[in-house]
Amino acid sequence: MSRDSSSRTLVLLTGGTGGAKLVLGFHEETAPEDLVVVCNTADDSVVHGLHVSPDVDTIVYTLAGLIDPAKGWGIHDDTFAVLEQIQRLGGETWFHLGDRDIATHLTRTRLLTEGQPLSRVTAALCQALGVKSTVLPMSDQRVETRLSTSAGELSFQEYFVKARWQPEVLSLRYRGIETCGPSPGLLEAIHGAALVVVCPSNPATSIGPILAVPGVRAALRETPAKVAAVSPMVQGRSFSGPAHKLMATLGVEASVTGLAAAYRDFVDVLVIDTEDRGLQPAIEQLGVDARATSIRMDTLDDKKRLARELLQFSV
Amino acid sequence: MSRDSSSRTLVLLTGGTGGAKLVLGFHEETAPEDLVVVCNTADDSVVHGLHVSPDVDTIVYTLAGLIDPAKGWGIHDDTFAVLEQIQRLGGETWFHLGDRDIATHLTRTRLLTEGQPLSRVTAALCQALGVKSTVLPMSDQRVETRLSTSAGELSFQEYFVKARWQPEVLSLRYRGIETCGPSPGLLEAIHGAALVVVCPSNPATSIGPILAVPGVRAALRETPAKVAAVSPMVQGRSFSGPAHKLMATLGVEASVTGLAAAYRDFVDVLVIDTEDRGLQPAIEQLGVDARATSIRMDTLDDKKRLARELLQFSV
Repeated sequence: MSRDSSSRTLVLLTGGTGGAKLVLGFHEETAPEDLVVVCNTADDSVVHGLHVSPDVDTIVYTLAGLIDPAKGWGIHDDTFAVLEQIQRLGGETWFHLGDRDIATHLTRTRLLTEGQPLSRVTAALCQALGVKSTVLPMSDQRVETRLSTSAGELSFQEYFVKARWQPEVLSLRYRGIETCGPSPGLLEAIHGAALVVVCPSNPATSIGPILAVPGVRAALRETPAKVAAVSPMVQGRSFSGPAHKLMATLGVEASVTGLAAAYRDFVDVLVIDTEDRGLQPAIEQLGVDARATSIRMDTLDDKKRLARELLQFSV
Repeated sequence: MSRDSSSRTLVLLTGGTGGAKLVLGFHEETAPEDLVVVCNTADDSVVHGLHVSPDVDTIVYTLAGLIDPAKGWGIHDDTFAVLEQIQRLGGETWFHLGDRDIATHLTRTRLLTEGQPLSRVTAALCQALGVKSTVLPMSDQRVETRLSTSAGELSFQEYFVKARWQPEVLSLRYRGIETCGPSPGLLEAIHGAALVVVCPSNPATSIGPILAVPGVRAALRETPAKVAAVSPMVQGRSFSGPAHKLMATLGVEASVTGLAAAYRDFVDVLVIDTEDRGLQPAIEQLGVDARATSIRMDTLDDKKRLARELLQFSV
């Protein structure tokens, strides 16, 4: 447990919307250049031929001050002229892409086609948008969450956006995960961090893929840094989205106790909501330290306060 | 010279802006379903990863009533949110793509990637936009005009848009032309037409590639239909663009006489401006009938009148 006390790097593992709230809190409470935000890419999709990285984009737009705060994704005040015309041309429009957002995807797709890895493309987008933090896609290789559901096999976006997470999910897998590798610098960042935070994102479809990238889970177990996780649910229900519905695919119950069971091999402390404080003993029986606080992040002040509380765990 | 007198098909060979004016005239003066518009595709470019077909789009937009009448290309009242954001992301923006225009290119690129040929993609776009005429790209295979210039080798769009047709053009070639084939139905349309019209487009970079598609020039020579051509220039200068500058690459002088020399093997009648009527004898010495009239098409009435005059040559 000896740590390099000079490190101020905070490594945040995150999906989109929920995790992005906490990422913004850290961004406001620390030096942005000390943040390394590791994003799930297993929801990446090809939409109208464009490579869309929903979680990466949500994080980049959040850090760039471009995010649409009402929706939690996309660019604020974006227009939809392209999509409206695509509809007129008979194309599918269930995946809502704004015009400025499409510029991101066009640029990313062009750079990927030119042979640049996703991590370098993401760094270029960050630089162009003035983002000082490091945003790392979990892998430069393509990984895709596939859900076996009551409505057949679906990609995550088909399940989440098109089917509005109504089908029953029987199982899921991360296609391509075995042969992918972590983005350059990812394992090193975990090892050298002052603190690692697993953000309140879906454990099955956002955090799960990151943990399944070869080397990542072992690095989290072995890092000298403390690893904290923030629950994405209260009293067995997620704040938004289907996290609670998908806990069974991890073989655990839909509760913070189930979460502790899923993360117990690498998490030092699990931050749960005060409403769940009755489960603290059950979590600690699993060998995970449990801290109860308000984990709702409705306002910027909520986000900053939660980030400050987590910073207390850093070296 | 025996013709199928039941045919009412008008085959128009055209590039973009200049030719599109006459295409619109025919569209107003005939039944739209009788028009087969054959478009140059040697200016097609990949822009931000998207397959752009400038001449096809200009014709489709013109026939769909979407064209920007002031510019002669693009969609009227289009917005530029995508391009502005691409600029912010550090991308090139010299090729002006509007948002609704980008929807066309996204749809085309997606369908091409799915394996559909350009002719079928174009038909689908026409159908979606309510275009009743047949718009045929000259070929389903990729052909690219390459210009050897005083500023190095350029694509047509680099020469025309980026360099504003200022470099001196030494020679040009249509890369891929030898191995391409005409679009399905193109040769048959020429053979069965009531009239073929070579529109007032650039003889070197718009009409030239169409004529060079294997089989097209022979079909024009052999069709029982009359073949009429409208000059894109008056007194040795084109109405717009660099046509006159590029005549030398065809081995002829920049004049309607040069044009007659270039087209003499397949054109029955060349329509020239009244200002050029002094050149009628020289043209007729080349074995080409010459008709002088006003070929300026500033107003819709001009376009319709010129179309009506040409319709007199049909069977």
